[in-house]
Amino acid sequence: MTKVSIIGSGNVAQHLIQAFQLNSQIELVQVFARNKKSVAHLLDSDAITSDYSQLQVADVYIIAVSDDAIAEVSSQLPFENQLVVHTSGTADLDTLHEKNRKGVFYPLQTFSKNKAVDFKTIPLCLEAENKTDLQLLKTIAHSISNAIYEINSEQRKALHVSAVFVNNFVNHLYQIGNEICEDNQIPFDILKPLIQETANKIVTLSPKQAQTGPAKRNDLKTIAAHEQFLTDDNQATIYKLLTQSIQNNGKKL
Amino acid sequence: MTKVSIIGSGNVAQHLIQAFQLNSQIELVQVFARNKKSVAHLLDSDAITSDYSQLQVADVYIIAVSDDAIAEVSSQLPFENQLVVHTSGTADLDTLHEKNRKGVFYPLQTFSKNKAVDFKTIPLCLEAENKTDLQLLKTIAHSISNAIYEINSEQRKALHVSAVFVNNFVNHLYQIGNEICEDNQIPFDILKPLIQETANKIVTLSPKQAQTGPAKRNDLKTIAAHEQFLTDDNQATIYKLLTQSIQNNGKKL
Repeated sequence: MTKVSIIGSGNVAQHLIQAFQLNSQIELVQVFARNKKSVAHLLDSDAITSDYSQLQVADVYIIAVSDDAIAEVSSQLPFENQLVVHTSGTADLDTLHEKNRKGVFYPLQTFSKNKAVDFKTIPLCLEAENKTDLQLLKTIAHSISNAIYEINSEQRKALHVSAVFVNNFVNHLYQIGNEICEDNQIPFDILKPLIQETANKIVTLSPKQAQTGPAKRNDLKTIAAHEQFLTDDNQATIYKLLTQSIQNNGKKL
Repeated sequence: MTKVSIIGSGNVAQHLIQAFQLNSQIELVQVFARNKKSVAHLLDSDAITSDYSQLQVADVYIIAVSDDAIAEVSSQLPFENQLVVHTSGTADLDTLHEKNRKGVFYPLQTFSKNKAVDFKTIPLCLEAENKTDLQLLKTIAHSISNAIYEINSEQRKALHVSAVFVNNFVNHLYQIGNEICEDNQIPFDILKPLIQETANKIVTLSPKQAQTGPAKRNDLKTIAAHEQFLTDDNQATIYKLLTQSIQNNGKKL
């Protein structure tokens, strides 16, 4: 049975702990948490340590901490030549200390503390320095997810930028939609079916094929009416820029 | 039984025809289509006319044509003082010719020609000049949808602008994410679970609560790395503007 230890106690660490606990092919050996209480609701206390020197032998150590802490945490590990991976979308492979074999185990999803996720559908992006380690990461990944991808560090950076566009920026547009509704005494609920359908459409159509609206059909009259309607400078600037981008098919004028 | 006639044969008209055919509380009297073939797959030929003078008596006439054609079509109707409504998110109530009683029956959804929709979940935005007409529109709306809203013309304009943000602009951000993936040999499929979860999150959280990412946590190092990564001017300009907007919580600097 493959032995996994998790170092960290935040959002990603907690979701990984729960995913590994649900399957029988992986033995979750230990969790390292500076504050043992932070994961006490998930594990027996003897499976939690806050002392690096107490770390037990495992086949892979998954460091699930904030990007800024990866280098420091990986340098603290009291062993060498083991497989140590991080879970970051942005950190280079070389952020990990060179005394161990390096890898990446990056779940591409937005995790909320109190919202359960079905790990089976979460894409896991894997990277390792050699084929044996990559194979081991694949085995572990397949035990919790059906969506496994080999992604190198350069691709992972691109993926993370893409994720900012389709997740962070999209959510911000939801917020602007919400604010326009609120300013006009319209319940935001009215937009939710449209938001769902917009996300559903691109399961079967490419975003280019799915594009509709005044900018796409170059309906200058409606665009002018919308620009006149938007008295908030920030909303108007975003409206103009994204309208132009759609009109130019994603290219700069 | 309430009698409805539909004038028009495009996307919205066809989805409405199918929704009314599925329920027994509404009698779909007739469809007016300039080109009778365009709806011949949906109706018996004797229920289709391309001649205004052949329009039969109905309780309401739903004009589902492009915004630009509403005024002309409504002026062509060979009767007076009937209830005539349009289905547009942008056209004023007064776009309809004054010889009839005016109203709006606006389904807020993105319709694709070959993709079935569950009309029950589609918000219908209703407006009329008097209570009796509004009540009639409500009865008709309830027969095909569970989401009925009274929305006046000014609110409808706001709603349409909001819809551009959460549908057209969001889809364009999907396209940019897709392009960044393609440029880096990453399958776009890897982003789809994230896109779905982003849309799902705001069913239970407000967009403001759901906001995450480098801009939200003011992670200047990651933002700088992303800006350096984006060599496409258009993508970089959009990245900067939306990052600033998140940092300023949707307000202009």
